[in-house]
Amino acid sequence: MPENLTPLNAIGEFALIRRLQAGFSLRQASTVLGIGDDAAIIAPTAGLEQVMTTDLLVEGIHFDLSFCPLRHLGYKAVAVNVSDVAAMNALPTQLVVALSVGPRFTVEAVEELYAGIRLACEAYNVDLVGGDTTASRGGLTLAVTVLGEVPAGQAARRSGGQPTDLLCVSGDLGGAFLGLQVLEREKQAFLADPDTQPELANYEYVVQRQLRPEARLDIVHELRELGIRPTSMIDISDGLASEVLHLCTASGTGARVFSEFLPLANPTLEAAAEFNLDPITCALNGGEDYELLFTVPVADHEKIKNHPDITVLGHLTDAAEGANLITKAGQPVPLKAQGWTSF
Amino acid sequence: MPENLTPLNAIGEFALIRRLQAGFSLRQASTVLGIGDDAAIIAPTAGLEQVMTTDLLVEGIHFDLSFCPLRHLGYKAVAVNVSDVAAMNALPTQLVVALSVGPRFTVEAVEELYAGIRLACEAYNVDLVGGDTTASRGGLTLAVTVLGEVPAGQAARRSGGQPTDLLCVSGDLGGAFLGLQVLEREKQAFLADPDTQPELANYEYVVQRQLRPEARLDIVHELRELGIRPTSMIDISDGLASEVLHLCTASGTGARVFSEFLPLANPTLEAAAEFNLDPITCALNGGEDYELLFTVPVADHEKIKNHPDITVLGHLTDAAEGANLITKAGQPVPLKAQGWTSF
Repeated sequence: MPENLTPLNAIGEFALIRRLQAGFSLRQASTVLGIGDDAAIIAPTAGLEQVMTTDLLVEGIHFDLSFCPLRHLGYKAVAVNVSDVAAMNALPTQLVVALSVGPRFTVEAVEELYAGIRLACEAYNVDLVGGDTTASRGGLTLAVTVLGEVPAGQAARRSGGQPTDLLCVSGDLGGAFLGLQVLEREKQAFLADPDTQPELANYEYVVQRQLRPEARLDIVHELRELGIRPTSMIDISDGLASEVLHLCTASGTGARVFSEFLPLANPTLEAAAEFNLDPITCALNGGEDYELLFTVPVADHEKIKNHPDITVLGHLTDAAEGANLITKAGQPVPLKAQGWTSF
Repeated sequence: MPENLTPLNAIGEFALIRRLQAGFSLRQASTVLGIGDDAAIIAPTAGLEQVMTTDLLVEGIHFDLSFCPLRHLGYKAVAVNVSDVAAMNALPTQLVVALSVGPRFTVEAVEELYAGIRLACEAYNVDLVGGDTTASRGGLTLAVTVLGEVPAGQAARRSGGQPTDLLCVSGDLGGAFLGLQVLEREKQAFLADPDTQPELANYEYVVQRQLRPEARLDIVHELRELGIRPTSMIDISDGLASEVLHLCTASGTGARVFSEFLPLANPTLEAAAEFNLDPITCALNGGEDYELLFTVPVADHEKIKNHPDITVLGHLTDAAEGANLITKAGQPVPLKAQGWTSF
């Protein structure tokens, strides 16, 4: 270990916690007490309901530290949880972080991870109110649990979709998957020749989509401003196809998704061409885009149709129709979940 | 793998989640929506504040599956979190579980773990409302996050102690540490001779204290019934000495703990004698007892002095006195935190 780095066992758990929490401030009026006691204290806002979700990121399964900087990992760990909060039509308020790190990590490495967590807390206006930091025999594991708030009765469940509701998605799809292909390729090139420099400059957009996804809280705010309440919503972590099927199953509907409407960014199309991958397949099955997939009543079409960052992909149908991708030639192709499974 | 066991990759993540959540029911009126969406929905009870805490248990650091049954581990993972809720003078309401398991685990093993989680949810009247289950390259890691409720303004912080407040503890101390010594000894005997049978019958109490600690929610209820509001409180996870020092630091006080009042159960004394360990040291530094350490105003002495499961250990003092153990001979010995650190 270089001399300017500090082994974790040199400072002890309590001193580590003090160092990690430095620089975090509390923003939410509902946070009564943050880090430092047996538990945080929260005063829920009258008239609001809460949402609660947890996500685990495991080294070697969800991320590869040979190309994922710790600061980005910290940011992403918060973002993917906040994305689940957004998918309920809610805004995040508090979070806790449980972290285990193996013996090869230094105090400075864990601080870098927390710098990313802090940036995400600032970006999403959420308070870090507690955590647990401990050793592991293996790699790094990061469990984040987030609380959020939503006006009572306004949470968007997966089950609220109705046949004829418009099926909408934020942003664009497939980029995160292609970013991962680029990073994996550069890693192999590096392993083959450690003197090689990673060539990422031409892939900035897709690499960013993979390493530093953003939770689409902006869409939650904009839907409120447009006076639109999504009838159902889910975030896209496993790929569009898998998430459409989840919405259909929960809502008891089918769906028609028009392939020509799938939002694909130019850098995604270019990377797909280079890797000889079908960009539509990347959008359907790639995963990790963390965009929001939601349904709105047909009556809201006027409000949403010109939104620069929301695309109407199709609509829900009766369950009997099934969930289909409609090709440019008008042919229905049943959607299949090829979503990622870690086992 | 025996034929009657199912590898995790045979059923996929969604099917696993469906199997795991079977048998769980919702008890709390505040739980609007449990497992199955992007997040759970909670309707906080008017007039109450919430507490939130998370704890991580890591294989090879916090537990050893060669002597800790998975069902006990699941129970303990909930209990240690609920203990933090109790230490705030609160009652648990909802929890989420994030779990990563290595390739050697089967579906049946994870179900066994969840059976323990379910038993604890029933015992502590708390709803499992979400989670994340994923693979790992190594062993088992279990992160539990619990929400609890407490009447507004009634949460017991570590910082509320005043000089002259009585220092009290629930139950008895040192047992969990001695249980661990017994289990480690039997493991070594087994490793030396796999035909050996573990000899645990004479150590049931201390082994139970280690493998299946209980959160002292009963004490929270009883203090409310006695009309006592603890001025400060903490749970004993790292040993009495460490926790007294935490209370004193947070409250800006010293403390006098009388060694003759330390509650030591007979099986703990017997095991300590057998292992040639000082039972007082086991109580002060052993850890994992998960009893509650709290302070009450002197005026409450009458209410508490005859309680069969609460012991008055001493009292807080001015900070200048420091935190001391008072020996039977009346000598003050400064308390030192030899609390467990995992790094």
